[in-house]
Amino acid sequence: MITAQGYAAQSSDTPLAPFTFERRALRPNDVRIDILYCGVCHSDLHTARGEWPGTLYPCVPGHEIVGRVTETGEAVTKFKQGDIVGVGCMVDSCQHCDACADGLEQYCENGFTGTYNGPDRETGGNTYGGYSDVIVVREEFVLKIGHAEADLAAVAPLLCAGITTWSPLKHWKVGKGQKVGVVGIGGLGHMGIKLAHALGAHVVAFTTSPAKREDALKLGADEVVVSRDEEEMAAHANSFDFILNTVAAPHDLDAFLTLLKRDGTMTLVGAPAEPHPSPTVANLIFKRRHLAGSLIGGIEETQEMLDFCAEHGILADIETIPMQEIETAYERMLKSDVKYRFVIDMASLKQPA
Amino acid sequence: MITAQGYAAQSSDTPLAPFTFERRALRPNDVRIDILYCGVCHSDLHTARGEWPGTLYPCVPGHEIVGRVTETGEAVTKFKQGDIVGVGCMVDSCQHCDACADGLEQYCENGFTGTYNGPDRETGGNTYGGYSDVIVVREEFVLKIGHAEADLAAVAPLLCAGITTWSPLKHWKVGKGQKVGVVGIGGLGHMGIKLAHALGAHVVAFTTSPAKREDALKLGADEVVVSRDEEEMAAHANSFDFILNTVAAPHDLDAFLTLLKRDGTMTLVGAPAEPHPSPTVANLIFKRRHLAGSLIGGIEETQEMLDFCAEHGILADIETIPMQEIETAYERMLKSDVKYRFVIDMASLKQPA
Repeated sequence: MITAQGYAAQSSDTPLAPFTFERRALRPNDVRIDILYCGVCHSDLHTARGEWPGTLYPCVPGHEIVGRVTETGEAVTKFKQGDIVGVGCMVDSCQHCDACADGLEQYCENGFTGTYNGPDRETGGNTYGGYSDVIVVREEFVLKIGHAEADLAAVAPLLCAGITTWSPLKHWKVGKGQKVGVVGIGGLGHMGIKLAHALGAHVVAFTTSPAKREDALKLGADEVVVSRDEEEMAAHANSFDFILNTVAAPHDLDAFLTLLKRDGTMTLVGAPAEPHPSPTVANLIFKRRHLAGSLIGGIEETQEMLDFCAEHGILADIETIPMQEIETAYERMLKSDVKYRFVIDMASLKQPA
Repeated sequence: MITAQGYAAQSSDTPLAPFTFERRALRPNDVRIDILYCGVCHSDLHTARGEWPGTLYPCVPGHEIVGRVTETGEAVTKFKQGDIVGVGCMVDSCQHCDACADGLEQYCENGFTGTYNGPDRETGGNTYGGYSDVIVVREEFVLKIGHAEADLAAVAPLLCAGITTWSPLKHWKVGKGQKVGVVGIGGLGHMGIKLAHALGAHVVAFTTSPAKREDALKLGADEVVVSRDEEEMAAHANSFDFILNTVAAPHDLDAFLTLLKRDGTMTLVGAPAEPHPSPTVANLIFKRRHLAGSLIGGIEETQEMLDFCAEHGILADIETIPMQEIETAYERMLKSDVKYRFVIDMASLKQPA
């Protein structure tokens, strides 16, 4: 077994605090990774604080992991000691259902294993995430990172925010000659803008806050629309090929559905705690529009996204924090006071708590 | 001008009654059709009774028309006197937008002209539908009928109920090897079952009434599921490639969305007066499912559907009525007391009212 140091919530109402636990000894196809950076996703907060059903405590969150390989099992072929690698939202899946065969482990028909909040497919125990100094992952779920070492902190959010926006953009074939909307400019949305722009689309960012206009243009949006401005919205009616909606708070979907062309699709990547107002069926019928959803992305497409980002110099916009400031970061995240992702520098774990 | 005899509502609260009016003299590309049969669609009732906004009175409903060509304008090339033809929900469109260019006049970006409740694109006046003895239509909106003369009454409903179900089945590529659901066994649903079956799919009919089980099997369903039976529903979870939902009454969409496979689509062809309960976003996200809508069908695909039905001997299940019994038919339709479409025999117009 491997002794790991991390931060865990011991219950829904206790703050994250130092936690020592065991990682499994390497199985033949396992990779041991010393974690350098871990991004802070809203899911971490929901899970740690028990806001979603089913949190297993102690809970060590974190699924935007970048680190260095320090050891490999005897059957590992893709990685060697010293490689810089990433781990995202999944650490295992059944590997034999249709979804897994299609490289879409996130839709594994037998359920993928989350990087945290398990259960582990072999032991049945809890899985512990990236808010820690070391992790052991089977090689099929480890990604190669081609970015420069100086950029690694800003690579971490690609493992969740990046792939969650990349997968739908690619699945719905976003590219040159298309007009694409990105709703919400936060952790996910800011990556959606960067990626859609890099894929060659004409990108329109939608935000409720006029203050984000300049930022959205810098991120790569060709236009910014304040979604509360009915006149601005009306000017874009029936004009979008695709809209990526990253907003999890309940909101009026019709306002965006009516901006789609005939046969256009709006894909939701955020699940609201309370339902959105029911979308008007006529808006779907009269232009044969689609409302869809999308979940993270498969391992193969995650590697494709990382390679694309390395080649195009795409990184998340981040603010680096020490592990000890995670609760402050959560509070700021709740106020959307972050541009656009917190990333924990795991070297901080060696400092006194 | 051509004098026409028909039945019209003079206001939202008066019953349909005999009405004499003028059809336009033939323009060069017009076809004059003596109407033999006209199907009775729920839209007829909604419009005649002013249940949808914007009814123009007097209102002559009817958009499932079969008749015989009695005269053609000098520029008409596709039809000659004596031809048996059909007219559906549309009699005109702009003919130059992207939708029209794609043969999808129902999505005309400048608005198609309804067979009734206009306005006429050239005169701005009202259009009068198929509850009448004669109609004048530009040849682009006239369909060839290849069925035997004895079957013509049962062909009429193909012009709306048939194409409204055919178009989505074809657009979403329903065929052999697929499992397809049809929700609701009424005017539209019974055609959806017949067409999906003829296209080679494994068809599962969903109904709220166990009494329709035998009927659905006769229509061509391979299986029938009573949608109120949770156990029957659960047995079909995650198994459908496509679901055609013909039910306009507000209902729980999640019950059907959860039956779709990954990447499956449920398409709505009925617009409820009150919204459906809001569908659960997680059901879209966790299997990348789609919720879509579809409107009637284009002229080219209507011809394709009619030819397919002639070749495969597909007809609507109908009950023929004289024009004088239209109000009784409406009342029975409101109670779903029809298997599965009323069709007016226009010869009855010559009888005393």
